[in-house]
Amino acid sequence: MKLVMDAQEVEAYIAEVFPQVEDYQFKIDKLNTGTISVSMKTREAHLRPGGTISGPTMFTLADCASYLIVLAHIGKVALAVTTNLNINFISKPEGDLVADAKLLKLGKRLAVCEISILTKTDRKLVAHATATYSIPPR
Amino acid sequence: MKLVMDAQEVEAYIAEVFPQVEDYQFKIDKLNTGTISVSMKTREAHLRPGGTISGPTMFTLADCASYLIVLAHIGKVALAVTTNLNINFISKPEGDLVADAKLLKLGKRLAVCEISILTKTDRKLVAHATATYSIPPR
Amino acid sequence: MKLVMDAQEVEAYIAEVFPQVEDYQFKIDKLNTGTISVSMKTREAHLRPGGTISGPTMFTLADCASYLIVLAHIGKVALAVTTNLNINFISKPEGDLVADAKLLKLGKRLAVCEISILTKTDRKLVAHATATYSIPPR
Amino acid sequence: MKLVMDAQEVEAYIAEVFPQVEDYQFKIDKLNTGTISVSMKTREAHLRPGGTISGPTMFTLADCASYLIVLAHIGKVALAVTTNLNINFISKPEGDLVADAKLLKLGKRLAVCEISILTKTDRKLVAHATATYSIPPR
Repeated sequence: MKLVMDAQEVEAYIAEVFPQVEDYQFKIDKLNTGTISVSMKTREAHLRPGGTISGPTMFTLADCASYLIVLAHIGKVALAVTTNLNINFISKPEGDLVADAKLLKLGKRLAVCEISILTKTDRKLVAHATATYSIPPR
Repeated sequence: MKLVMDAQEVEAYIAEVFPQVEDYQFKIDKLNTGTISVSMKTREAHLRPGGTISGPTMFTLADCASYLIVLAHIGKVALAVTTNLNINFISKPEGDLVADAKLLKLGKRLAVCEISILTKTDRKLVAHATATYSIPPR
Repeated sequence: MKLVMDAQEVEAYIAEVFPQVEDYQFKIDKLNTGTISVSMKTREAHLRPGGTISGPTMFTLADCASYLIVLAHIGKVALAVTTNLNINFISKPEGDLVADAKLLKLGKRLAVCEISILTKTDRKLVAHATATYSIPPR
Repeated sequence: MKLVMDAQEVEAYIAEVFPQVEDYQFKIDKLNTGTISVSMKTREAHLRPGGTISGPTMFTLADCASYLIVLAHIGKVALAVTTNLNINFISKPEGDLVADAKLLKLGKRLAVCEISILTKTDRKLVAHATATYSIPPR
């Protein structure tokens, strides 16, 4: 596998495919062959009563990070579609979050990613996910 | 298993636990022992380019419906927490959606649900999920 | 979707693709468009200490049933490959088991199935799974 | 988290809980706080036509490795039960296999593991899984 877009190009592309971008302020902290780190700002709208960050917020971050690492390797011309996402919620999330995603497979038809969601400040694991994307014929 | 809240009580409770309620306008269409149907209104913010409904939107609906069916059987005093959610995206979603959730297990510590997400108008299956909730000691 | 093989043809095919067939004595109880019921005989080798049926045994039954329902609709010429299987263990399994599998999607490239594993005698739900198969170009 | 059993104790315990042990010849290659490597010998019975290793074989290895890492941290007195296992099949497996399992969470009631299954000789990733175990009150 080989990167075909750099962090700046991928970041510019986020707004187009993730309309929620302003709510989350996704930012690519690192992008390397096979791995990406995407952080987000936690806001009022992402919280549940008690101050915990909602499941859908963490799902969105996991999906965003893994989608972007796939795109960074296949290019934005291709329209990848999430076919499966499995998420385990590990511990109570607080504050800003970062998703470290890793490409486990980049096949002709399917890409599989593993994603760890961590607190930004002390890198405590709060959720772990795997996601599969269907890649259209190129 | 036995219902301890009716649809009206559960619906009144949604706003408290799902701050996103106004965005989604969740509504309980049916509530029976072990099953629930929850519908939502699809809005601009739920769409991806091309008009498809975003994965996070469907995750939110699946999580909401299964959370509510658990609460309807254990009561709102208990604070259930999602520990796992696995979702398969089946076909392109359009228009308003409904989630049919079913309790597969209601144990002392864990509840497991299965959720089908369908288009409201023609009941086409667009996503399928299973979710596990940890139930605190009662 | 439409069946292209009948129960007898599918059953004859099991031995070829599931070398474990003699251990399990898989049998197709029912086969209809989109659904299949496959039963197995539980033997000593399938048990864990305490008499419970092992997780791998239930995985094998789930994979077998969903694989067969896919084959029944695409024909044995095509070589489908399991890409994902998610299984929730619901209650303690005992005695012979049956898997009711349902095709949720039969696309050109992917098939998705949902599987309930039940005790044969009283149809108690013991496990629930979803499985995805990659279908090679036809 | 802290180990309460060493590799030798855990290995001696395998035969008791995994009756399939002789078929697989599971061996603990490494055991550290939070991580374990368990290898298996691939035999005729584990193969599918075409020489690929069967899904159930990899499920068994993933379940075994993650079960053992949990036991190594809670002791064999406790009877942990698999509640969920999600597995993605990544590439064609051949030869002997090794499972690298990592404890993502060791709570009072739930343990969550991540497992990579690799070929023994060239450490190619062939499958990836996550598993959840319910831990009985201690």
